[in-house]
Amino acid sequence: MSQGTLLYAQSGGVTAVINATASAVIGEARARRVRVLAARNGILGALREELIDTSKEPLAAIRALAHTPGGAFGSCRYKLGSLDADRAKYERLLEVLAAHDVRWFLYNGGNDSADTANKVSRLAAEFDYPLTCIGVPKTVDNDLVVTDCCPGFGSAAKYTAVSVREAALDVAAMADTSTKVFVYEAMGRHAGWLAAAAGLAGEGPDDAPHLILFPERAYDEADFLARVRKVVDRVGYCVVVASEGIRTADGTFVADAGGGRDSFGHTQLGGVASYLAGRVQERLGLKVHWTMPDYLQRSARHIASKTDLDHAMAVGRAAVRYALEGRNATMPAIVRTSDAPYRWKIEPAPLHRIANREKTMPRAFIRRDGYGIPAAARAYLTPLIRGEAYPPYGRDGLPRYVALRNTPVARKLPAWKV
Amino acid sequence: MSQGTLLYAQSGGVTAVINATASAVIGEARARRVRVLAARNGILGALREELIDTSKEPLAAIRALAHTPGGAFGSCRYKLGSLDADRAKYERLLEVLAAHDVRWFLYNGGNDSADTANKVSRLAAEFDYPLTCIGVPKTVDNDLVVTDCCPGFGSAAKYTAVSVREAALDVAAMADTSTKVFVYEAMGRHAGWLAAAAGLAGEGPDDAPHLILFPERAYDEADFLARVRKVVDRVGYCVVVASEGIRTADGTFVADAGGGRDSFGHTQLGGVASYLAGRVQERLGLKVHWTMPDYLQRSARHIASKTDLDHAMAVGRAAVRYALEGRNATMPAIVRTSDAPYRWKIEPAPLHRIANREKTMPRAFIRRDGYGIPAAARAYLTPLIRGEAYPPYGRDGLPRYVALRNTPVARKLPAWKV
Repeated sequence: MSQGTLLYAQSGGVTAVINATASAVIGEARARRVRVLAARNGILGALREELIDTSKEPLAAIRALAHTPGGAFGSCRYKLGSLDADRAKYERLLEVLAAHDVRWFLYNGGNDSADTANKVSRLAAEFDYPLTCIGVPKTVDNDLVVTDCCPGFGSAAKYTAVSVREAALDVAAMADTSTKVFVYEAMGRHAGWLAAAAGLAGEGPDDAPHLILFPERAYDEADFLARVRKVVDRVGYCVVVASEGIRTADGTFVADAGGGRDSFGHTQLGGVASYLAGRVQERLGLKVHWTMPDYLQRSARHIASKTDLDHAMAVGRAAVRYALEGRNATMPAIVRTSDAPYRWKIEPAPLHRIANREKTMPRAFIRRDGYGIPAAARAYLTPLIRGEAYPPYGRDGLPRYVALRNTPVARKLPAWKV
Repeated sequence: MSQGTLLYAQSGGVTAVINATASAVIGEARARRVRVLAARNGILGALREELIDTSKEPLAAIRALAHTPGGAFGSCRYKLGSLDADRAKYERLLEVLAAHDVRWFLYNGGNDSADTANKVSRLAAEFDYPLTCIGVPKTVDNDLVVTDCCPGFGSAAKYTAVSVREAALDVAAMADTSTKVFVYEAMGRHAGWLAAAAGLAGEGPDDAPHLILFPERAYDEADFLARVRKVVDRVGYCVVVASEGIRTADGTFVADAGGGRDSFGHTQLGGVASYLAGRVQERLGLKVHWTMPDYLQRSARHIASKTDLDHAMAVGRAAVRYALEGRNATMPAIVRTSDAPYRWKIEPAPLHRIANREKTMPRAFIRRDGYGIPAAARAYLTPLIRGEAYPPYGRDGLPRYVALRNTPVARKLPAWKV
């Protein structure tokens, strides 16, 4: 057994493959005889000293994590502020780490988490506490800089492209007498990566999706509606994919415009798809349907991308290696060396380069008219959704997802409220 | 080559496996050297004399139909009225059938279609036109009587159960700091079969879905909200599955209550999930997310049930046999002979027994408290979602769904506007 303990925590919205990263982290650490604790509900568990002893889980359960969506130890939305503003919290965190002899801290999340991991590493250095902090990438939004893509994105992207292709066949079959316009709402508050992935569903110019709305382009209702009308006239129906984060030229989120009161004066929850569908119905008089997959798109392990799964496992293994090698304040980044054939490798990237930055869709990945994806985006996206990685199914027809025991570690410190 | 032609038409909302039925119909007919025409856009194509020559499709394309969702020849929402009211249309239909030497008419749809096929057969008898009419069952709503279940339902049910299980893992992981209540909207305007299928996602009493709202039970807001609160207090989060067709005790559709005007005075499209989510947020002050899968649930061939696919193919083959045997005005019905092991067979049922009737969830399939499914419903539902039947995927990571040539047959009659 190596000296010291590795602490693993999940952060932010979970994905179809974040547990695959956890599986790889624990598997790799076990192979190297390193003890792994996990924080319950992400950084909050670390602050509250709610830690889980992963050595209590059988190997089969750790392996099954690789095909189980969600976040096996719990995750959280909780951002630590600056070292000055949140100093007490950072110090508490170090205290908990020290109490459990944690020498390696792996934080699996997005750019917020990279920032937190980076700050923890700075504070540890300040206190001369020997700690190696590693950020492990994860986000369906695909908005981390430096890394070519983010584990979690490829599977959500595959879900999106497959779902749009399937729904489009449905709409096409019925358009003569039923729905003419179908609107699909994709996650992505600031970056249009998932909406872009929907573009993979179509090949020819008349294939769905006919119009993609990106948060990187201002939403212009008149132009949008005129295009919907033209597509319906030409193709017979129109499939629209809209990022949840589209905004008008003055910066107003379209989703916020959709909220309001229903006829009983109750709060009406909006959403981009329902809003756009309403406008199409009202202004164009066309029968419209819409879908908001919401969490389904980021938890759909049943249609995970094999490439994405491979990435998720690879960053997990690399994170353990980097930790034990003492590559402090780094993140294993996915580096693409070739589009076709698709080739990639993992390389360490400094956390400070990733922290708090956001990668939106580059101009070259949005078609000149603003409503689709060009060949460059296809070349980038296609390998990320390639390959199927089905979970095992039971006799009940359902995927066999594992639930861990999550055995708590005895507390060593006084309780701390957060 | 047998004398005469078989006409196949799809009707109403399409499913993940209606094309599998088409594949079986055409395959069986080809094996028996019977010519198959298909009506473009269902009965409308028959009325308009827009017919498709399926002999122009290569065998590989017909086989690929078995894994392609949507409706390969187009479907429609178009109900013929009584023989008296719509006599001209029925006569036109017979005229088109006669012009193309159609001796067997297979109508693939729900209870409306069973009614239409039945009426066509009566009119043909009246005119001494030798025609055998067969209804072929299809509907994700699972609301046909006589048949134990309906092709299309099992796959939508599997999609529902898998999606709810996956999304629940997501919600569970984040509930500490994020979403506490998640609402999933299932199709089913009058019958709660798909919502019931979501119940398969959970096994123990605290597993999601925690509350299912059936159209067969009056929606009582106070009772519902109190239960949501109790589940959140006990489990930490609450997953709700609601049928789109739930109604309050006075018969008002909850989905209609949800519609209204947004803050700009625009039409607000409602939906049960968004409405319930709004009530939970407003009345309980809990963070809520919701999803409306809409067409995704009925077109998700990527997660089709093997049992459902087997049913869809079997009714297609049986329909051709019944047609050629002259079993007029019948439908191949699925007869269950055993739950465990699951055993079934196909038997002919008279169309008049199926036409225009609707099978809602029996009392024994709804838990006594009205918010879940008991063992009897599980025993019925489980075999229907059992088995995976994945479509083939291309190197682009997407299912290889087939697009037919749909070669039109030359018209023989004057145009007829409908």
